[in-house]
Amino acid sequence: MKINGKAYHSIWLHPENKQIVQIIDQRFLPHQFIIKDLKSVADAAFAIKEMLVRGAPLIGATAAYGMYFATLEIDSLEGIDTHLKNAAQQLLATRPTAINLQWALKRQSQAIANSATLEGKRATALQTAQDICSEDVEICRQIGLHGLPLIEAISKQKKGAAVNILTHCNAGWIATVDWGTATSPIYQAHNKGIEVHVWVDETRPRNQGARLTAWELGEHGIPHTVIVDNVGGHLMQHGMVDLCIVGTDRTTYTGDVANKIGTYLKALAAKDNAVPFYVALPSTTIDWEIQDGFTIPIEQRNSQEVTHIQGLHQTEIAQVQLTPNNSPAANYAFDVTPARLVTALITERGICEASEAGIAKLFPQKQLTSPQI
Amino acid sequence: MKINGKAYHSIWLHPENKQIVQIIDQRFLPHQFIIKDLKSVADAAFAIKEMLVRGAPLIGATAAYGMYFATLEIDSLEGIDTHLKNAAQQLLATRPTAINLQWALKRQSQAIANSATLEGKRATALQTAQDICSEDVEICRQIGLHGLPLIEAISKQKKGAAVNILTHCNAGWIATVDWGTATSPIYQAHNKGIEVHVWVDETRPRNQGARLTAWELGEHGIPHTVIVDNVGGHLMQHGMVDLCIVGTDRTTYTGDVANKIGTYLKALAAKDNAVPFYVALPSTTIDWEIQDGFTIPIEQRNSQEVTHIQGLHQTEIAQVQLTPNNSPAANYAFDVTPARLVTALITERGICEASEAGIAKLFPQKQLTSPQI
Repeated sequence: MKINGKAYHSIWLHPENKQIVQIIDQRFLPHQFIIKDLKSVADAAFAIKEMLVRGAPLIGATAAYGMYFATLEIDSLEGIDTHLKNAAQQLLATRPTAINLQWALKRQSQAIANSATLEGKRATALQTAQDICSEDVEICRQIGLHGLPLIEAISKQKKGAAVNILTHCNAGWIATVDWGTATSPIYQAHNKGIEVHVWVDETRPRNQGARLTAWELGEHGIPHTVIVDNVGGHLMQHGMVDLCIVGTDRTTYTGDVANKIGTYLKALAAKDNAVPFYVALPSTTIDWEIQDGFTIPIEQRNSQEVTHIQGLHQTEIAQVQLTPNNSPAANYAFDVTPARLVTALITERGICEASEAGIAKLFPQKQLTSPQI
Repeated sequence: MKINGKAYHSIWLHPENKQIVQIIDQRFLPHQFIIKDLKSVADAAFAIKEMLVRGAPLIGATAAYGMYFATLEIDSLEGIDTHLKNAAQQLLATRPTAINLQWALKRQSQAIANSATLEGKRATALQTAQDICSEDVEICRQIGLHGLPLIEAISKQKKGAAVNILTHCNAGWIATVDWGTATSPIYQAHNKGIEVHVWVDETRPRNQGARLTAWELGEHGIPHTVIVDNVGGHLMQHGMVDLCIVGTDRTTYTGDVANKIGTYLKALAAKDNAVPFYVALPSTTIDWEIQDGFTIPIEQRNSQEVTHIQGLHQTEIAQVQLTPNNSPAANYAFDVTPARLVTALITERGICEASEAGIAKLFPQKQLTSPQI
């Protein structure tokens, strides 16, 4: 999508130097737009661990490029297996629970192993990293194409007046390589000339909505308004939301949706006010083992994400403390929205009911289009 | 309630100088605890306008003391009527929509007018201000006594294990003169030795929960945990909330509750998980004219409350910007929770169903115990 009028991906090979990969350093968005060069396994590991990049697809892509760097860092086939294994371990240790990370590393390791020469390994590693990226772009684009008619239909009903869409967190293009998941139908609609307006939940505690979703929508030229997480229910009560679209971290094969904390509250409000509530996802986030969403373990993160917040103080990025010194805070990162509250799932294969039957119809063999997302 | 082991009210006459009133300057809580002297009409007006004091009952009490200062600022009966009228206008203009402000000024003006001498007017004004304060304390205490059995019953069911109570915003003692409304049953329970634990919604955008409720509970020694507003639903899904108690800015005579933005989302989650959802209120906040809560006008406040946030930066209180420069923000301050989601109302006269019939049973003559709260 566009930044200041120019099309970007969230990660790309340097146009003049094939040994360098470039990323947007997301730590300082929206206040500072910094492009950073990655040149080594260590750089890639640092970028993932310190969250210069985030979002499962982008993490996988970065790790894949990390393995490409590993092939560049050794000059002969002697000892290369150990070196690659160490590199994979170093990259895996950055965020051990991210499923895309494991998958990308495995795919790369197998691909590299299949090449006999050093040059071959390097070329394969580069090609595989680029394939992972372009496959992700295509999957996200398909999600957008399948979601587009939902927005189009409302636009027609409203005779072209702006379609109001509420989203939570950042399931945007900078969490993927391009398009995003929840945002993809929105970009498709906007690019087609359909008037849309997005209510952006700020998404405490990490404010991915206020920081990232607002930034990427604004840069691409999509009208939007930032709201605190408390507001969505009120807007729905007053007919100010036409539909909700959110992403998901994991969806059970029965349609329960684990997503950023607070998603459940918006889904309740949508149900109470007959607002359609869609979840956009690559089918690779469907968990074919888990039947009941409530058995998904919910990560508890550092309480400092609640007690402190980062923002722009004069010209510098600074943290401020929000709470009393002695008040504990709890930081549950995700919640589970039961399938009964989800109007439908938007996948790269089409739209389906959030139910075992609905999902099975689109994915009869529980087959994943591509496991990287 | 207590601050650092010592009992306080939120406003009080200086113990050694009857011409001075003292308040806690709430602008800097929880980071700085500053007691401020008020000595003039201008001081009182400043304290209300700049939100050194907030909460309808406390605003009313401060305005009442403001009128007392007005009687001190003039040395003869000549011109006193004009002076008092100007003072009342100055105080009223600070926050023109606060109903308690109008009421306190009217009550004071009438009381002062009934005294013939300057000394009499001064004594009357002081007495009336003190009466307004002590009546508020008593009403809030009664709310607590009526709410106490609800907590006690759960404590017994749980065999003494801590009762988990979720609250939103600050309907605490520092929004009143003492006890608070939503917090009053909690303080009563704690003071009686019942184990309680409070989930404190941070309450974006102004963070009255994270700043004020957490502070006052902590100072009084009540176990609590600050959470972002997104978390409550998840906690209720997992049996981690035994009951919710919130305050209200205005309740229709049919039981619809206007309260801080986000209250509706918590009420939905409570309903979905069979968690009791109580609203604590002095009966003076019942609006006997409005039948349908959705006709209550909802204030939209400055968007800077969303885009920026205040906190402690190193040793100073500072604001940081959270959003991109060009992203608009909307700031709806309240929402309406329909009566169907409210388990019961806790008033100074007892507990009643949130319905026209329930309210009428406790208040058959639509009679207000005291109109100042």
